[in-house]
Amino acid sequence: MRISELAERSGTAPATIKFYVREGLLPPAEKTGYNQVSYGEEHVRRLHLVRALVDVGGLPIARVRAVVAAVDDPGTGLPEVMGAAQRALPGHAAPWEPSAPSLAAVEHVVRSMGWEVEDGNPGLPQAAAVLDSWVALGRKDLFDSLGEYARAAEVVARADLARVWPDAADRDRSAETVVVGTVLGDALVAGLRRIAQEHVARVTRPVHQTSSPSAEEPS
Amino acid sequence: MRISELAERSGTAPATIKFYVREGLLPPAEKTGYNQVSYGEEHVRRLHLVRALVDVGGLPIARVRAVVAAVDDPGTGLPEVMGAAQRALPGHAAPWEPSAPSLAAVEHVVRSMGWEVEDGNPGLPQAAAVLDSWVALGRKDLFDSLGEYARAAEVVARADLARVWPDAADRDRSAETVVVGTVLGDALVAGLRRIAQEHVARVTRPVHQTSSPSAEEPS
Repeated sequence: MRISELAERSGTAPATIKFYVREGLLPPAEKTGYNQVSYGEEHVRRLHLVRALVDVGGLPIARVRAVVAAVDDPGTGLPEVMGAAQRALPGHAAPWEPSAPSLAAVEHVVRSMGWEVEDGNPGLPQAAAVLDSWVALGRKDLFDSLGEYARAAEVVARADLARVWPDAADRDRSAETVVVGTVLGDALVAGLRRIAQEHVARVTRPVHQTSSPSAEEPS
Repeated sequence: MRISELAERSGTAPATIKFYVREGLLPPAEKTGYNQVSYGEEHVRRLHLVRALVDVGGLPIARVRAVVAAVDDPGTGLPEVMGAAQRALPGHAAPWEPSAPSLAAVEHVVRSMGWEVEDGNPGLPQAAAVLDSWVALGRKDLFDSLGEYARAAEVVARADLARVWPDAADRDRSAETVVVGTVLGDALVAGLRRIAQEHVARVTRPVHQTSSPSAEEPS
């Protein structure tokens, strides 16, 4: 197909498509004649993937390139593709070396959940850094909720992976599913959590707590 | 205390403290004499809050300012403070007007969960936009997992709110808890989810799926 058709089917402007090709996010079109090129179904599919990572995931171009490279390398196994997608997510890296007590608390929860993970899992320092930040605010009570958060995280992870294995015989499709599941899954859980927070706030709010009627509404 | 002591106690450089005051993230110091100012405990506390939002939440300065303004305005009720924090999170706004079928699917899950929420809840279009993005990739199966994600989201929301209500008599502390809970809670769940994903991938991976031994490790 021509670039105009690809643009229409993917909802992406031709100039953006050319930009993605230059940036290595999209393979170049096939040359079909003098000054003529043709795009295929794989371009439609890849464009949807790139747009999902950029628009919904909020990833910068350089990180999308790293994720796409992992998807396209047939020597990269699915767990490593998942690692690449996890590292690409914004604001999710541990911003500092976490303290020993916080790391120990996370490791304790991991053990009590029976989770088998490598020491290098990026979630360990990330979760511990959040606890450190909470302690710096003079609080300790996030530690008490750690088990509940961990149970919720396992529910989410099972839902994530349930979508991957049916594709497991098709490595490229699985790799794509892992990436999209990791990035979109975060956005989906965040969205549902905002809804659930409002509900839980309504049904559990102590009676003396009232909302200001003049205050702004969520938009 | 002098700025040097505030810097030491908060782990924040004096130049950064002055920048935060100029940007309206931190109240100015009290003038205690000619060319002399003094910072108090509220500055230590506020600096920890700002650093949590910047470092762990990854929020840009302008969004931190909006969140801090909501916390500081005594006329802003807790649900509205939560809304301000939710809107400040990066990459979590619905990037487009979601389709009617996706919005209907989210609303169906909300009803089946028995959640009572306003039509204006920002999570509704956000979750629906994620579903749209999934459909654009030629998939439908995320719809099947929506109920599981919703149950996980409610567990997380209950853990979030459990930390707020004990403070409910202290409006300022509650507002701070809501903000930090929303922003840090997202980062905590994301971290635990990465750990759980690795575990679930190990224990549920079909036998014909092998990882490439040469592939990169998560770092």
